[in-house]
Amino acid sequence: MIGQAATRLQFRTPGRGLTEITREVSAWIDGTGIETGLVTLHCLHTSASLLITENASSAVWRDMVAWLDRVAPEGGYYAHDDEGPDEMPAHLKAVLTGVNLSIPVIDGRMALGTWQGIFLAEHRRAPHRREVAVHLLGE
Amino acid sequence: MIGQAATRLQFRTPGRGLTEITREVSAWIDGTGIETGLVTLHCLHTSASLLITENASSAVWRDMVAWLDRVAPEGGYYAHDDEGPDEMPAHLKAVLTGVNLSIPVIDGRMALGTWQGIFLAEHRRAPHRREVAVHLLGE
Amino acid sequence: MIGQAATRLQFRTPGRGLTEITREVSAWIDGTGIETGLVTLHCLHTSASLLITENASSAVWRDMVAWLDRVAPEGGYYAHDDEGPDEMPAHLKAVLTGVNLSIPVIDGRMALGTWQGIFLAEHRRAPHRREVAVHLLGE
Repeated sequence: MIGQAATRLQFRTPGRGLTEITREVSAWIDGTGIETGLVTLHCLHTSASLLITENASSAVWRDMVAWLDRVAPEGGYYAHDDEGPDEMPAHLKAVLTGVNLSIPVIDGRMALGTWQGIFLAEHRRAPHRREVAVHLLGE
Repeated sequence: MIGQAATRLQFRTPGRGLTEITREVSAWIDGTGIETGLVTLHCLHTSASLLITENASSAVWRDMVAWLDRVAPEGGYYAHDDEGPDEMPAHLKAVLTGVNLSIPVIDGRMALGTWQGIFLAEHRRAPHRREVAVHLLGE
Repeated sequence: MIGQAATRLQFRTPGRGLTEITREVSAWIDGTGIETGLVTLHCLHTSASLLITENASSAVWRDMVAWLDRVAPEGGYYAHDDEGPDEMPAHLKAVLTGVNLSIPVIDGRMALGTWQGIFLAEHRRAPHRREVAVHLLGE
């Protein structure tokens, strides 16, 4: 019979960049005993976000962070800068990449491709403590 | 036992800009009696979309609309302009921001961060009537 | 009573561009016998992705591919180019558009708008075989 489980996972980010969280999410799924279902991750912030990309190359992660800086640059573009010049670009990057992900779980594992990893993307310059709500429906 | 509910919510947009819909979605969830589960929102259009960003600053919303205009500008770039110069940029912005969101519901409330609001983003210049399908699985 | 079904759909892409997959997904849903629920699609790759846009105009699709090329161009920007100049732009486009979608299913049909189609977006120049995990919860 279909049931559900939910939690909140905490992560510390070292400032702007990507932190892989695949292992933490997988470990929590394992603990629920649910074998088949749907896992949803929701990042509770507006200047950090979630994305899926290559899990094997730190050059990919650096290129992605640099590209996000080009697409949503700091500078004199913004009316809102209450928390400094990196705040509004951080909001834009969070919208571009998105704050939630839903991934099927099959035979006890997320249906990720071989090269896919789940990343928490920190868009502020400073280190932050970030929270991700995780929810699993299945049996 | 897990059950489900679904509806379609209607919104009127005043033309290009963000309209917060968090309250309308929350009110509908309250009415279902489902306390824990997963809510999914799907915008039924290709020139309006859904996003999550800061709920407290209209400067953030203006900056976001201006940034979307810079990333997907009107102008001589497009083969498709059947409905005017703002149509193709609207399709691009809808793809960039996305038309669906899934958010865990815990203890009767969406697991949103303190500063997160759900917004319907209108990308056409003219006011429109927009429809969002809402679905909730849980108990 | 709520149940679930899952599969993996295979697609061949002709290289960079959009391939509509709405019909294949709908046909699979029909076969499950589930009338109301939530379908989730997850693309198992980091250089192809999923998006929803207008289903009736090939000019829209061409404009979208050209726009993605402008936002994430090939060129001398990237540290990572192990698989050629189109690899890193492909990773960026996959993050911009996203690799998963969740869509309510109502009365046996996905709750898509009249003009919405689901597309597999190939971001590499060469043809590829791509896999999409599909999961349906409902009854």
